[in-house]
Amino acid sequence: MTTRPGRPRDERAHAAILAAVTELVAESGYAAMSLGAVAARAGVGKDTIYRRWSGKAELVYEAVFTASDAAPVPDTGSLEGDLTVLVQQLIDEFSTPAAVAALPGLLADFAAASDLRARIRSAFLEPAKQRLTVVFDRAHARRQTGPDVDVDLVLDGLVGTVFFRLGILGESAGPELAQDIARIAAKGIESR
Amino acid sequence: MTTRPGRPRDERAHAAILAAVTELVAESGYAAMSLGAVAARAGVGKDTIYRRWSGKAELVYEAVFTASDAAPVPDTGSLEGDLTVLVQQLIDEFSTPAAVAALPGLLADFAAASDLRARIRSAFLEPAKQRLTVVFDRAHARRQTGPDVDVDLVLDGLVGTVFFRLGILGESAGPELAQDIARIAAKGIESR
Repeated sequence: MTTRPGRPRDERAHAAILAAVTELVAESGYAAMSLGAVAARAGVGKDTIYRRWSGKAELVYEAVFTASDAAPVPDTGSLEGDLTVLVQQLIDEFSTPAAVAALPGLLADFAAASDLRARIRSAFLEPAKQRLTVVFDRAHARRQTGPDVDVDLVLDGLVGTVFFRLGILGESAGPELAQDIARIAAKGIESR
Repeated sequence: MTTRPGRPRDERAHAAILAAVTELVAESGYAAMSLGAVAARAGVGKDTIYRRWSGKAELVYEAVFTASDAAPVPDTGSLEGDLTVLVQQLIDEFSTPAAVAALPGLLADFAAASDLRARIRSAFLEPAKQRLTVVFDRAHARRQTGPDVDVDLVLDGLVGTVFFRLGILGESAGPELAQDIARIAAKGIESR
């Protein structure tokens, strides 16, 4: 989604910008957070931000909703176990103060910007799809699933369920939610 | 959600208001649609609208997203068949020009109004939950499922998947989508 700079100083600036966004959006909400305030807290110039992100929506998305993209892919030995870990990571992302504060404004900006919206599947969801594909490949190797699982559909189902309950309804997740979702999904796609 | 008037003239006014909303939101979008324009097109006074609905969000929700609430509950003889019909009704609701035009603004208004948001589960989703409960009771009578299906979770899964793909990603539904979703959900909750 963004060009990752190779130099350590740029890496530090990148991390400082994302940390500043996470703090500021939780403190003041999405609409009130200015990129000037982000730049000031991160100790960079505003041009550094504009060089790397198309605008506030993309910047907040990366800061708030990509925490698990670089985490190791779970390998618990069962499809249900692996999906439980992945769904719990989604739940954790949607439950942070920054995510709760950001989501309404972020949704409105994504809905209004067709160029951003068109990149959700092709760019923003791609790391999650890759992680899910690894899990399904392992399940297939264990003969738990066939070779033809519709990864996009399962991804939409897992993300959509968590997004709808936590992000739209504003409910909090009980301790069983990840496993309850994973159990239905795993059973729904396993070979019998 | 609203007090249904018993007198025929009020019934006609109610239907005229909902029809006017459906037309106007598709023509001009959610933000630009005024309740004054709705009243004028429906041939009623604005006070008639304010007596029945808390505001634009609730009015548009009822006009656009409750079409299937009064439809007969499907009874195809199989859980997958019944769920396919219910999911297709959801897809049809989310695919109307009025729904596509209304959703971004409606989402933003619901997200900003905690009183509305708190009523999604208890009021707005209740007719769909009742329909799903009838389907699960029949499946249990056929011994296809146990007695303990988590209806709220399955409802969030079905609505969330359709909502995420059509409403958030803006993708259109292929002819197989309803059955693909229903197959995974039915298999996921059936007794083995």
